Amino acid sequence: MISIDKPTLLLNKEQCMNNINGILEKAKSSNTHFRPHFKTHNSAYVGNWFRRLGVHSITVSSVSMARYFASFGWRDITIAFPVNVLELSLISELANELALNIQGDSSSILQSIETALLYPVGFYIEIDTGHHRSGIAWKDLDEIDRMLDFLSRSNRLKFKGFLTHSGHTYTADSKEEILDIYKDTVQKMNYLKDQYKEAWPELTISIGDTPSCSLVEDFSGVDEVRPGNFVFYDLMQYSLGTCSLEQIALALACPVVGISPQRNEILIYGGAIHFSKELLYKNSGEPIYGYIVRVSDKEWSMPVEGAYLASLSQEHGIIRAPKELIEEIKIGDILGVLPVHSCLTANLMKGYLTLDGEVISY
Amino acid sequence: MISIDKPTLLLNKEQCMNNINGILEKAKSSNTHFRPHFKTHNSAYVGNWFRRLGVHSITVSSVSMARYFASFGWRDITIAFPVNVLELSLISELANELALNIQGDSSSILQSIETALLYPVGFYIEIDTGHHRSGIAWKDLDEIDRMLDFLSRSNRLKFKGFLTHSGHTYTADSKEEILDIYKDTVQKMNYLKDQYKEAWPELTISIGDTPSCSLVEDFSGVDEVRPGNFVFYDLMQYSLGTCSLEQIALALACPVVGISPQRNEILIYGGAIHFSKELLYKNSGEPIYGYIVRVSDKEWSMPVEGAYLASLSQEHGIIRAPKELIEEIKIGDILGVLPVHSCLTANLMKGYLTLDGEVISY
Repeated sequence: MISIDKPTLLLNKEQCMNNINGILEKAKSSNTHFRPHFKTHNSAYVGNWFRRLGVHSITVSSVSMARYFASFGWRDITIAFPVNVLELSLISELANELALNIQGDSSSILQSIETALLYPVGFYIEIDTGHHRSGIAWKDLDEIDRMLDFLSRSNRLKFKGFLTHSGHTYTADSKEEILDIYKDTVQKMNYLKDQYKEAWPELTISIGDTPSCSLVEDFSGVDEVRPGNFVFYDLMQYSLGTCSLEQIALALACPVVGISPQRNEILIYGGAIHFSKELLYKNSGEPIYGYIVRVSDKEWSMPVEGAYLASLSQEHGIIRAPKELIEEIKIGDILGVLPVHSCLTANLMKGYLTLDGEVISY
Repeated sequence: MISIDKPTLLLNKEQCMNNINGILEKAKSSNTHFRPHFKTHNSAYVGNWFRRLGVHSITVSSVSMARYFASFGWRDITIAFPVNVLELSLISELANELALNIQGDSSSILQSIETALLYPVGFYIEIDTGHHRSGIAWKDLDEIDRMLDFLSRSNRLKFKGFLTHSGHTYTADSKEEILDIYKDTVQKMNYLKDQYKEAWPELTISIGDTPSCSLVEDFSGVDEVRPGNFVFYDLMQYSLGTCSLEQIALALACPVVGISPQRNEILIYGGAIHFSKELLYKNSGEPIYGYIVRVSDKEWSMPVEGAYLASLSQEHGIIRAPKELIEEIKIGDILGVLPVHSCLTANLMKGYLTLDGEVISY
């Protein structure tokens, strides 16, 4: 491994490939289209690992991200974010280059989208199946009818089907609840499909969230899945029961810059601008910003029992640690931290170092 | 103003200059050296605004940041972060170019620092006056003596004095408590100065945190102050009572992408990768990620009463808003958000757009 002198995001490529293959294989055997969300890694280099496995269609969460991946040859992209009407000319440019899908949940803006586009784009009606962030309520057939009425006459917007993100799986209390949300989502989306398939025989339903895609073994009855976080997983997924600690493919390697045996604390160079401030809570109510692992030449250990990242300021992180770790560690050592939310940590770090020493900077 | 089509960090330069001048003038009239912390704006362009006011010495929080500002001509820099022994060769290179100060709180690493440095650097002993993040406990004269014993014989490490960050002002419950912490800090630091000034007549004491530097009118008795956040302020400072809403010089302009009158919510393009997930709590216990302002040609309004940023995912933000705002707003409008923690928001956004239309990208 090349030497680490400041916070560095380690990537276990082998585990990452296992994570990708895990969901890809389930999608294949379920005959469900796999359109992974690339917002988690946001890396053309990591994207190529998917491509080599035969993945050619992807999901992104912004027009900027679509442009980035388009510049690396991706030709089938869904922007799974409510269409931003201020970026319609950029969307139109992209639609000239590739098969682009956008999503919307309001009939009020369809005409302005239609007017601004010079090229056809695929259009998903976003459905709210219970997450309540965006989307038309699944029962609101009146609004869906208004949209479809417009889409049936549109020259630019090609209706593709119904899309949802069941993000309420992230606040579920158990695996059973996640599976119940999944079943409920599939039922509601198929209800809509049944309602409209006669008029739109090609319509598909697209769902996607890592918790349910990780727990469900068979995606039958779903045309497309779009999970993202599963590529790396993180402590949030672990706390939901949707991945094991071994499946977490990222660890932030941080230099030790201070040790306080009096407070049972280790101070690391690694703070909110590296991890983000996403947190979980211990049963006792204290915040946890990460679990601590030992980093060796080509791997990292299981988390050190009783050690956790307890506090973050801009560049400082404070680890609470058991005496044994405090006695073993010295200033200038490197400790690894399993992040709470890999998407936000990867966004801040911008690059990766694989355990084989590959430096990934795009 | 140039047109905004995605999340854009607006900077009120006039207010920013007022904020800078406010503390600069107090430092001047107190005969206290002003060494502003540049981690908040982290911008060479904004740094030049300080330079034009006669500021020539700065504080940074990492070796990387020191290198960045060195490349823009800054020649007097204190890295106010426990020295990272893994970056000593970079520190040594910098010390060859400019007047560099570092800080440390452990006698155990002084020899390895001394050995690695080819050029002299200023050295501050970091003191813990109550924040308990790093630093030698102010009463621990034994460890201070061990450090000074080494420093008195060192060829590379030039002892400058005692430095502290009283970050516990951030958890104070009132302005009075912040002022009490300030007084206590000054007392403890002067106690140390008195202890050692005979042996080290040049030694200085350096303190720095925005809450106390904002409230205190006279810095007499302190040789140097190093506040950072005051350049922009934010809702955290406002909630501490250390700035007014008018003094907040940053607002993140975000496109409206959805409106839900049923839920009294406005969905914006602007999420955790733009704001960070720093939060405050309402009295009722609900999280607040920002206050909402209306953005017009060359200004933004006072916060809209009853409206706040209530939830963030990676690129989505959900605003809870009163009916009047919901009825006024349409998809494609721009709303501004006063951030909770300007340092983290600025770090994520990387650039600014001033209200006069200056695009600041470095």
